[in-house]
Amino acid sequence: MPELATPYLVFLGATANATDAKTGFGLVHWRPELCTGQLRYPGCSIDLGLPDLRPEEAVAAGAKSLVIGIAAFGGRLEAAWLATLVDALRAGLDVVSGLHMPLAANETLARVARETGRRLVDVRVPPADIPVASGRRRSGRRVLTVGTDCCVGKKYTALALERELRARSVPATFRATGQTGILIAGAGIPMDAVVSDFIAGAAELLSPDNDPEHWDVIEGQGSILHPAYAGVTVGLVHGSQPDAMVLCHDVSRTEIEGYSGFPVPPLTYYIDRYLELALLTHPAPRVVGVSLNTAGLDSAERQSVLEAVERQTGLPAVDPVATGVAPLVDALLDRQGS
Amino acid sequence: MPELATPYLVFLGATANATDAKTGFGLVHWRPELCTGQLRYPGCSIDLGLPDLRPEEAVAAGAKSLVIGIAAFGGRLEAAWLATLVDALRAGLDVVSGLHMPLAANETLARVARETGRRLVDVRVPPADIPVASGRRRSGRRVLTVGTDCCVGKKYTALALERELRARSVPATFRATGQTGILIAGAGIPMDAVVSDFIAGAAELLSPDNDPEHWDVIEGQGSILHPAYAGVTVGLVHGSQPDAMVLCHDVSRTEIEGYSGFPVPPLTYYIDRYLELALLTHPAPRVVGVSLNTAGLDSAERQSVLEAVERQTGLPAVDPVATGVAPLVDALLDRQGS
Repeated sequence: MPELATPYLVFLGATANATDAKTGFGLVHWRPELCTGQLRYPGCSIDLGLPDLRPEEAVAAGAKSLVIGIAAFGGRLEAAWLATLVDALRAGLDVVSGLHMPLAANETLARVARETGRRLVDVRVPPADIPVASGRRRSGRRVLTVGTDCCVGKKYTALALERELRARSVPATFRATGQTGILIAGAGIPMDAVVSDFIAGAAELLSPDNDPEHWDVIEGQGSILHPAYAGVTVGLVHGSQPDAMVLCHDVSRTEIEGYSGFPVPPLTYYIDRYLELALLTHPAPRVVGVSLNTAGLDSAERQSVLEAVERQTGLPAVDPVATGVAPLVDALLDRQGS
Repeated sequence: MPELATPYLVFLGATANATDAKTGFGLVHWRPELCTGQLRYPGCSIDLGLPDLRPEEAVAAGAKSLVIGIAAFGGRLEAAWLATLVDALRAGLDVVSGLHMPLAANETLARVARETGRRLVDVRVPPADIPVASGRRRSGRRVLTVGTDCCVGKKYTALALERELRARSVPATFRATGQTGILIAGAGIPMDAVVSDFIAGAAELLSPDNDPEHWDVIEGQGSILHPAYAGVTVGLVHGSQPDAMVLCHDVSRTEIEGYSGFPVPPLTYYIDRYLELALLTHPAPRVVGVSLNTAGLDSAERQSVLEAVERQTGLPAVDPVATGVAPLVDALLDRQGS
């Protein structure tokens, strides 16, 4: 996997929409040490709390890449941004994008990148030489976040697990499988863009042999019960060979988002299915806990939901935003004693 | 899906290897009406039983495409073939290939195709505009061949089912998901080359709405228990929304081919897993029978194995080559009365 050049100058353009800027917020939240500054146009009402820097100032402050930190609807490169991106290349920065259109499809950017020797990096593009999965067991430990649906907290939970493990001096590496995660990690593979024969192989490549006590914390994708994306999920589980999984769920979700008539069954059903799936490539996988998005509940309601899920599943349940993930890491590290 | 121009002139080069010529044999076996002639070099010891024709003779006999009917190790275009392929384009034939390298990567072929207005068709390349799966139920009936592993007879069984259905005047269409199947059908989608987010969507596209009594007979891929390819299988099952499945198995296979340590569990385990999988997008899927490859057994041994599998699964079991698939079609059509 090509690694991104860090730290970043985070480009926000003229956005006034916090949702569009979620990549920027994610970077600052999870990797403040990778964020040298922000670049905002007049009218931009989003503030990541970083110094406002022009490209040459960012370079002077140590930045190595300009990251497009906004994802507007359609994911296109806006004409208004071009001069800034050219300035960034000329100042010595790589330009990193999660937009749908490859940066090099813009002729001006392609030419200036050639002239300056800087890289145009599209984090949606997977590496070219992914092997077919071998099924070979790898050294080191792995935990994978799995979900009841898309967008239920798998990335957030994985990053929170990595942070908590490191806080306990346990070596851990977040392994990114989606574009925002890749920007945060500075590396990774966009699983949804991998050709289908190579999904499990990509997951094997993402999480190579490691020290026996090291944990790879792998960002999950999709859901085993998603009518469009379950194939991605299955390949990711098989290739990841997880020792442990954390089931992620949004408590407000009763149907698969965007798929009316596809209900979300009980969490215990998911747990059984994910264990069955993981057993193909791991002799004794565990689900160690449940990570819930309880946004919108007050603290009494949240407590009640967490307790109900713990009774139902027999596993620790947390809301990673509201309560943290310490009980999940307790359960995870229990494994090492067994 | 782009349809291939038929009938075909089947190109065999100088091959003396029947395995390399399996695409050619498959075409003649399943679609004799699509095979106008064969083109062989001196030294070629394979004979498909077709007239030997040069490109211009094939055109005069009605052929519309030259199909490369051999798949040598590595799947490269051989330099010795170039003059023949150029002749074919100039004679008015499309050139159709299942090789790894795109035909248009050869500059001479690309230029002559432009000059002559003929098409260079790579059946390994999926269509560009595959949608994300919707999960919407479609009209018409569908049967999917599923397997215990790769290369256990899923394509052969599907083609045999189509032939038997048509022999009973039941409208049926073989839907191809791999390159040889696509050549035989003259259309299809190479599922293994589809980007992973779109696998189930490709399966939906492959098998569109149809008349209520029409059967799509869909060629399966991989296996739910394959450590590299299960993701493809899952997406194909979900998008196909099969009313019925036929489980295919090679009786000599005790481990997943090429994956030592990955055993093939009992057929009943596969049946339960495939039904569980199909239930996501179909309210009442059935496994209607088992299709066994018993090559290498004598007829008494074969009969004994078929009876044992019928007792074990409670389903009709056939060897499509040795016994035909009539009992499977009986079970399939039972569904229509229920």
